[in-house]
Amino acid sequence: MTQSRQTNRQILLASRPTGAPAVANFQLEKSQVPVIQPGKVLLRTVYLSLDPYMRGRMNDAKSYAEPVALGGVMVGGAVCRVEKSEHADYEQGDWVVCYGGWQDYVIADGTDLLKLDKKPVHPSYALGVLGMPGLTAYMGLLDIGQPKAGETVVVAAATGAVGSLVGQIAKLKGCRVVGIAGGEEKCQYAVNTLGFDACIDHRANNLEEQLANACIDGIDVYFENVGGKVFDAVLPLLNSSARVPLCGLISQYNATELPDGPDRMPLLMAQLLIKRIKMQGFIVFDDYGHRYGEFSQAMTEWLNEGKIKYKEDRVDGLENAVGAFIGLLEGKNFGKLVVRVGPDDLE
Amino acid sequence: MTQSRQTNRQILLASRPTGAPAVANFQLEKSQVPVIQPGKVLLRTVYLSLDPYMRGRMNDAKSYAEPVALGGVMVGGAVCRVEKSEHADYEQGDWVVCYGGWQDYVIADGTDLLKLDKKPVHPSYALGVLGMPGLTAYMGLLDIGQPKAGETVVVAAATGAVGSLVGQIAKLKGCRVVGIAGGEEKCQYAVNTLGFDACIDHRANNLEEQLANACIDGIDVYFENVGGKVFDAVLPLLNSSARVPLCGLISQYNATELPDGPDRMPLLMAQLLIKRIKMQGFIVFDDYGHRYGEFSQAMTEWLNEGKIKYKEDRVDGLENAVGAFIGLLEGKNFGKLVVRVGPDDLE
Repeated sequence: MTQSRQTNRQILLASRPTGAPAVANFQLEKSQVPVIQPGKVLLRTVYLSLDPYMRGRMNDAKSYAEPVALGGVMVGGAVCRVEKSEHADYEQGDWVVCYGGWQDYVIADGTDLLKLDKKPVHPSYALGVLGMPGLTAYMGLLDIGQPKAGETVVVAAATGAVGSLVGQIAKLKGCRVVGIAGGEEKCQYAVNTLGFDACIDHRANNLEEQLANACIDGIDVYFENVGGKVFDAVLPLLNSSARVPLCGLISQYNATELPDGPDRMPLLMAQLLIKRIKMQGFIVFDDYGHRYGEFSQAMTEWLNEGKIKYKEDRVDGLENAVGAFIGLLEGKNFGKLVVRVGPDDLE
Repeated sequence: MTQSRQTNRQILLASRPTGAPAVANFQLEKSQVPVIQPGKVLLRTVYLSLDPYMRGRMNDAKSYAEPVALGGVMVGGAVCRVEKSEHADYEQGDWVVCYGGWQDYVIADGTDLLKLDKKPVHPSYALGVLGMPGLTAYMGLLDIGQPKAGETVVVAAATGAVGSLVGQIAKLKGCRVVGIAGGEEKCQYAVNTLGFDACIDHRANNLEEQLANACIDGIDVYFENVGGKVFDAVLPLLNSSARVPLCGLISQYNATELPDGPDRMPLLMAQLLIKRIKMQGFIVFDDYGHRYGEFSQAMTEWLNEGKIKYKEDRVDGLENAVGAFIGLLEGKNFGKLVVRVGPDDLE
């Protein structure tokens, strides 16, 4: 069933997952398209962003953001068009980025909307290279990671929305870049298209050995977005004064309990101490929202000059969002995952 | 046996400890006082500093500094006097700080010596409040911790060389300061003399509960120098955007293996991520040696104005260094531990 003018399809959180999310944790509901009041706009979703952080919102645990309520619409960034406006700042047809969630229609009061060009060439880029993942890569790498020319930068999920940008920005800064990705095809892409110096398949049995061979001078910046066995391989290779910006731990998101012992928390702290390492978590809009303009300008320039390559993994239809999201947590996407929810112009 | 002009007493590393160091790991050797060559100075130790980091040097493991060799002299900072000089920059009677180790006499080539005043009022302060522990407290707290007025700062080993200064500097910056120390006497001292807002006895059964009660607004800066159960109590109380300068882990130094599971390394990383925490290890002279002047000026001023209190735990005689050091790792010292190795002026 495709998007229409009559029906608002919504994907709700039906139940909280234990471990990996399953189809049954979600529920597709249909209702009437809501009617707007003065001061509001009615937005129609064209692209929905799917991102690993959404897994955290499905839990009932206190985190940096509120969990999605049971029966509530799944949250997410979206690129939308204004279908009706009773707000002075917006008119029908405007393109905006909003936090509209997994649904066809949403009403907004005009705050927290980011207007795009009247006729954006790549509207969905606002969910990736020019949006949250781009800002994450840019600020985490440059502000926390502080890479210097000649240093070795390692990033996992190397062909993902964030990792692919981290590596390319690090190359632009003169670093040696080693990626980690799942499968031969992604590794080839990271080296041949994105220009990484090396890329290692994390499915290999000898990940630690391969990573050590690819990082003969150790690791100066590890951009952490996965955790787990990749971090285990990285930790012994970190150099003195290494920096570890920490933006995600996708390998842990589906975990239902802590791994068996021994307890390596003291080991990690001892390594941070002995090697004078900085490890710093960040939540991109909270920490760096105010620097979006600086990022946007730099990234737009790099894109226009062809210095940054960007790949989308585009899924058609809101009804396919659930499957795509489950796959994202398993590393099945190749590039930034977005859902094409509706057409640019709805008949 | 006291210091003499004829004999050089040296405390050597006889064997590497497993777990806590024992008297048998050390050996007192006597030899002739060495004879100097042109370009050198002969230094006589007046004060020897005993510090927790020395435990790490007794291991054979790779760390940020070379281990002490078996049969080698135990390393350590000392305040010495020039007994003989064949070096143009030094003359007999000069007071210097050097890394002379646990011995009466050492020969130096003039590099890595810090000259003190001709007649220093408190020469041993150069090993504490105006030396390495002072610089550690000052830089770790101010540069990494970045405390803001009104924030809550927690420091363990609150009456120790570093902790006592961390807390007092944080008070000077307008913070609420909660210390953790071993025993009622130390806790009273932290509050009544050092001016901390509260101090909790880590030997209490309900450390976590007491700390939570003392930090009702959470913890913004935790200056980490102990690790272990204190950190366990701190971690759940850390606020968003908390900073954790990491200068030591004394509770772990004698550990022979990692604690039992579960493996909390992923838990720590998840907390750093969710709460956007910065945890950063530092080795003070490597990271901040170049800023000694700035520190020295500020600290001297605070001392002169009576804004910083400083307490030494002074042990007499090199032969008592071993016992004092073993006690230091058990938290038996009260204030900065120094050994009075010889008199100001040797007859």
